[in-house]
Amino acid sequence: MAPRTALAMVQTAPRTLEPRDLPLPEIGDDDGLLRVEACGICGSDVEQYDGTLRVPLPVVPGHEPLGVIERIGDRAARRWGVEVGDRVAVETMLPCRYCPACLAGRYPLCRARRIYSYVPVDRPPGLWGAYAEYLYLAPNAILHRVDPELPPELAVLFNPLGAGFRWAVEIPRTRPGQSVVVLGPGQRGLASVIACRQVGAGTIVVTGLEADAPKLALARDFGADVTVDVENEDARRRILDATDGGADVVVEVTAYATQPVAAALDYVKPGGTVVLAGVKGMKPVPDFVSDKIVLKEIAVRGAIGVTSSGYAEAIRLIESRRLPLEKLHTHDFGLRDAEEAILTLSGEAPGPRSVHSCLLPGRG
Amino acid sequence: MAPRTALAMVQTAPRTLEPRDLPLPEIGDDDGLLRVEACGICGSDVEQYDGTLRVPLPVVPGHEPLGVIERIGDRAARRWGVEVGDRVAVETMLPCRYCPACLAGRYPLCRARRIYSYVPVDRPPGLWGAYAEYLYLAPNAILHRVDPELPPELAVLFNPLGAGFRWAVEIPRTRPGQSVVVLGPGQRGLASVIACRQVGAGTIVVTGLEADAPKLALARDFGADVTVDVENEDARRRILDATDGGADVVVEVTAYATQPVAAALDYVKPGGTVVLAGVKGMKPVPDFVSDKIVLKEIAVRGAIGVTSSGYAEAIRLIESRRLPLEKLHTHDFGLRDAEEAILTLSGEAPGPRSVHSCLLPGRG
Amino acid sequence: MAPRTALAMVQTAPRTLEPRDLPLPEIGDDDGLLRVEACGICGSDVEQYDGTLRVPLPVVPGHEPLGVIERIGDRAARRWGVEVGDRVAVETMLPCRYCPACLAGRYPLCRARRIYSYVPVDRPPGLWGAYAEYLYLAPNAILHRVDPELPPELAVLFNPLGAGFRWAVEIPRTRPGQSVVVLGPGQRGLASVIACRQVGAGTIVVTGLEADAPKLALARDFGADVTVDVENEDARRRILDATDGGADVVVEVTAYATQPVAAALDYVKPGGTVVLAGVKGMKPVPDFVSDKIVLKEIAVRGAIGVTSSGYAEAIRLIESRRLPLEKLHTHDFGLRDAEEAILTLSGEAPGPRSVHSCLLPGRG
Amino acid sequence: MAPRTALAMVQTAPRTLEPRDLPLPEIGDDDGLLRVEACGICGSDVEQYDGTLRVPLPVVPGHEPLGVIERIGDRAARRWGVEVGDRVAVETMLPCRYCPACLAGRYPLCRARRIYSYVPVDRPPGLWGAYAEYLYLAPNAILHRVDPELPPELAVLFNPLGAGFRWAVEIPRTRPGQSVVVLGPGQRGLASVIACRQVGAGTIVVTGLEADAPKLALARDFGADVTVDVENEDARRRILDATDGGADVVVEVTAYATQPVAAALDYVKPGGTVVLAGVKGMKPVPDFVSDKIVLKEIAVRGAIGVTSSGYAEAIRLIESRRLPLEKLHTHDFGLRDAEEAILTLSGEAPGPRSVHSCLLPGRG
Repeated sequence: MAPRTALAMVQTAPRTLEPRDLPLPEIGDDDGLLRVEACGICGSDVEQYDGTLRVPLPVVPGHEPLGVIERIGDRAARRWGVEVGDRVAVETMLPCRYCPACLAGRYPLCRARRIYSYVPVDRPPGLWGAYAEYLYLAPNAILHRVDPELPPELAVLFNPLGAGFRWAVEIPRTRPGQSVVVLGPGQRGLASVIACRQVGAGTIVVTGLEADAPKLALARDFGADVTVDVENEDARRRILDATDGGADVVVEVTAYATQPVAAALDYVKPGGTVVLAGVKGMKPVPDFVSDKIVLKEIAVRGAIGVTSSGYAEAIRLIESRRLPLEKLHTHDFGLRDAEEAILTLSGEAPGPRSVHSCLLPGRG
Repeated sequence: MAPRTALAMVQTAPRTLEPRDLPLPEIGDDDGLLRVEACGICGSDVEQYDGTLRVPLPVVPGHEPLGVIERIGDRAARRWGVEVGDRVAVETMLPCRYCPACLAGRYPLCRARRIYSYVPVDRPPGLWGAYAEYLYLAPNAILHRVDPELPPELAVLFNPLGAGFRWAVEIPRTRPGQSVVVLGPGQRGLASVIACRQVGAGTIVVTGLEADAPKLALARDFGADVTVDVENEDARRRILDATDGGADVVVEVTAYATQPVAAALDYVKPGGTVVLAGVKGMKPVPDFVSDKIVLKEIAVRGAIGVTSSGYAEAIRLIESRRLPLEKLHTHDFGLRDAEEAILTLSGEAPGPRSVHSCLLPGRG
Repeated sequence: MAPRTALAMVQTAPRTLEPRDLPLPEIGDDDGLLRVEACGICGSDVEQYDGTLRVPLPVVPGHEPLGVIERIGDRAARRWGVEVGDRVAVETMLPCRYCPACLAGRYPLCRARRIYSYVPVDRPPGLWGAYAEYLYLAPNAILHRVDPELPPELAVLFNPLGAGFRWAVEIPRTRPGQSVVVLGPGQRGLASVIACRQVGAGTIVVTGLEADAPKLALARDFGADVTVDVENEDARRRILDATDGGADVVVEVTAYATQPVAAALDYVKPGGTVVLAGVKGMKPVPDFVSDKIVLKEIAVRGAIGVTSSGYAEAIRLIESRRLPLEKLHTHDFGLRDAEEAILTLSGEAPGPRSVHSCLLPGRG
Repeated sequence: MAPRTALAMVQTAPRTLEPRDLPLPEIGDDDGLLRVEACGICGSDVEQYDGTLRVPLPVVPGHEPLGVIERIGDRAARRWGVEVGDRVAVETMLPCRYCPACLAGRYPLCRARRIYSYVPVDRPPGLWGAYAEYLYLAPNAILHRVDPELPPELAVLFNPLGAGFRWAVEIPRTRPGQSVVVLGPGQRGLASVIACRQVGAGTIVVTGLEADAPKLALARDFGADVTVDVENEDARRRILDATDGGADVVVEVTAYATQPVAAALDYVKPGGTVVLAGVKGMKPVPDFVSDKIVLKEIAVRGAIGVTSSGYAEAIRLIESRRLPLEKLHTHDFGLRDAEEAILTLSGEAPGPRSVHSCLLPGRG
């Protein structure tokens, strides 16, 4: 018999996650229910957990869901082209599909969008996050079919890899032979390396801190030509040497550091593009010299979300099994260990640092 | 008989311009000589004059030349499609035409380019600036034919108007109906208004200081819907009200003020474009919050030069005589009065402030 | 008391339209009902009427609806941002909003889309065309608010004008100063002239037949520089003379003539763009020399639908009241006179030829 | 001592090549002289040879030169950034660098351009083709440095590979995951496969004739997923099956066949792009149904030349030594065997068909 409730980890206050049984919703013609197999842990999950990122509480966190269709309405099945039993990746955003931004294909800019993990439990049906056994598939959710044979911890990489394709390839229109500098070797930095390598980029440089040495080694494994320890090396000189005076594309994905934003303007060549995708808690950037943008005719492009084409390309790459993507995956946790998962990503928990980690609610 | 020397105003030190007779060059197969009818006074002429903008000295200033072909080599005549007696506008930049940037049509990024008014007198043939009776037309100069019937002080507007077309239309790809905010009502701000109005922009807002009231009135004459006195009005509120929460395009052309660069991120709507074209003497921008670029997915585009398509469109507009462009022209001066022209533009000289002014070396 | 049925003109067979009373639908949370004020008559309405364009029958024709919201579900009202009593323009297409094309903002390519006037009466709720007092607003309809003060026969011009903006401006990215040749002076050809003039196009040439003289005169009224009677003039020579050897953009909107498609390749300059928007009943094009596309590096772009940005710009232009658009409107008819309206457009009815005509079901 | 003359194969009439000693030119400040190491044989060399392609005679054929700088003027050395002894690839076109097309970076559209191999011997200095020991480097030639360690028959592949990058990647903006159909498995078709594979294309299909079996095998070696023998298979069905109903990009590079141009419209998906790069001797295309372009909103793009970015990417790929590009090279010939080289490419000579062949004038 089908269950009546789902176990969910509910954030009730900063740094407080509680297991709760939430009722499973009725499913109508337009929506569905996902049995969550895996949920990737995003850097922003840490900020949501500690309260830096304020969201309405109580809430179920988790916005990188992978799972299996458990129930689905007839119209929803037709629209999404899926049926009960299909494995799908679910996009983070729930765009309105009606505003000019949505109609123009720019749904990350939809002002009426909702985002999984930021909708509180008291908004029916409550299951708006993937730190749970089941996730509500709202009518405006965006789904992608995924090969059911892949291990869930690998399939769930669609989310950071999708960001790599959008931020490091689609937005800067990276062309073959172009040089790319990735500032920050986290999962999205590594995804940027992977995506750029897929499209024939030329020299790729990745920067990180001393403690990031294992991640920088991974970057090299996935095709970075040069990695730079910015604490012990002259980053500017090494980057300019490696890129013959400046990169075609610079992608900024460090967490909370503002210095790289100002420095990116030095690393990019005249006429090049800087993609800013790392948020800084609304801190001002010291020493930001806008004249560099003017005199070098730089394009600076902000990137916050991912669009379907990026996710689709990520899934295609994972399904191709051409790359040893399992190297990116370092940790997985049961649903009740969500707090440990977050503290592992943030580095507060002991043990080796995470590159990519996920919850596996389905593991029992 | 043709003259042997040309009177030129030579800058020998900061704040020092001297009249000198410089020899006219021999003209070969690939180059030419321009009899200067008019030279527009650029804001950067003030900075060059007072030494803020350092250039090799001694030098002939002036990089907005309009004139008549006095002599020309046969091959040059074929290449440029002009002959002796033709009136032409001359572009500011002398690109190499050989590097990848030039071959890709992005010659403002040419690293080997020269710029009229920044090449010293001791580099033969010396006449590298248009504060002179004659200007050397180097083989890599870029020329545009201009209707000889137009008054020179009107025809010479091709330069700031070309900037308006490139900065406010070409670079942000301004489309019909889009809202535009122009920060700064100087000649390039007004040119931005004119260019945007030509391509069917929607609401246009222009900001300025209290002392800019006459320029803001001109902006309204040329089609701005709203003007804002940022010293006495709440610029942010007025802009957001006028643009329904944020503009599609913001063009920053203020001189040396950094605050508008940071504020531009508030004035633009999600997914919109900010064009930075005003230099700030390499000053850092206080309170520059890069997260606004990320979260709103803003595109920030630097613009320093103008390309041929912008100049061509400017000339077409001037030649059409559809707009009362003479309203932009406020002052003209004889060649020997170059210093007064500069001080008038800077506001150091008494009398009404300049919008657009020029030297008229040919006036005798 | 609200009516229970709506009068609709139902096409039951080729060349057969019958008045019928169709029941008004129940409106739920996601949909609405439009009281039709006006329905523009499209060239394809003639082909649908005579059976050249085969659609499932019986059907209510009419896919250019303008009207007033009569009933609306709560969720639909929020999504569309409208309420009962608002006047709206309704787009022709009903895209799925779920497929990759829709998510990418290219909904004219949606394979699951429906089109008003091509959905048969037996598909509930039947009112799928605007030759009727009421039109069903399906959940995936796309609506634009329109100034209620405008005469309906003027407001309903949003449809052909929207095509002008998409076909002649958006798709070829027509820039200021560019030359444009419009092949065919029908309502969409005239709309192309109007749209190009709004964005600062240079020389505009329009071609037509001898019988099109009044339409060519209208083209000149709306800013065409040159019009050509292709039956009595050497079209090729006149076009090449007017465009200095070839146009930047050629827009083909003739009905059913194939010769202009082949000729467009001669009228466009190297590197230019040809937009094909006129359908030819799947007839092959004689003398189509593809080498011209290769050797001149021409871009040929097909255009069938209109997107929201084009409609929005059209509505903005109509609401601005800047142009004498009423000159385009030549005929309007009561709902029961739909057949006469069609025959007037096709030229089968006596009297002056139509430029733009519409039904006015609300006129009583 | 330096030679005074160069051996050149001179075409004096259709199907007539004669060895001649032509005088070596004086080199001035702006030009140079290339010692030809290799000259690729282009399909159009066959047409030039047999007179189908009419060029002024007598002429030295050969427009795919690779060689070593023998002499160079000082200014030319600075501009090109090369010196005596450097190995360079030379682009086919000699653009004017002055017209609007050149200034906009679209020099294949330059109306004043010259093309190596089409400038007659009687135009000084005569050595305008690379079927010779030496080639004149005119001031407007475009050069790329090439690794001198590569075998010349491999380095000279820069020319067809550059076409692959421009025609199959740059012009259609092929993105990762997109499906590509290449019509024609000649050297440029194979180059298209290679280029698309470099940028992460999805499914790649290549078509050919029965006699093309070895080339289709090569296509599979270089990453084509599906190859189709159009004489023995149902090309349409196989292509639509392989591309899930239509390809994102179709590249037409067959020689002289018109049927593939019409068929390309069936092979491309709605919203997709067809690149036409194969010339057909100005023959009309039978059964070209332009409505397919309209109804599917297809973009058809002509491609005749290659630009520097394409060549640069080709050279980068060759220099990377990542691919077994030597498999493309099937034949090379001494300079005096030019006629045999042409007849081998055309298939008139006995023996295995050529994929890529070249002259090696330096082999002695």
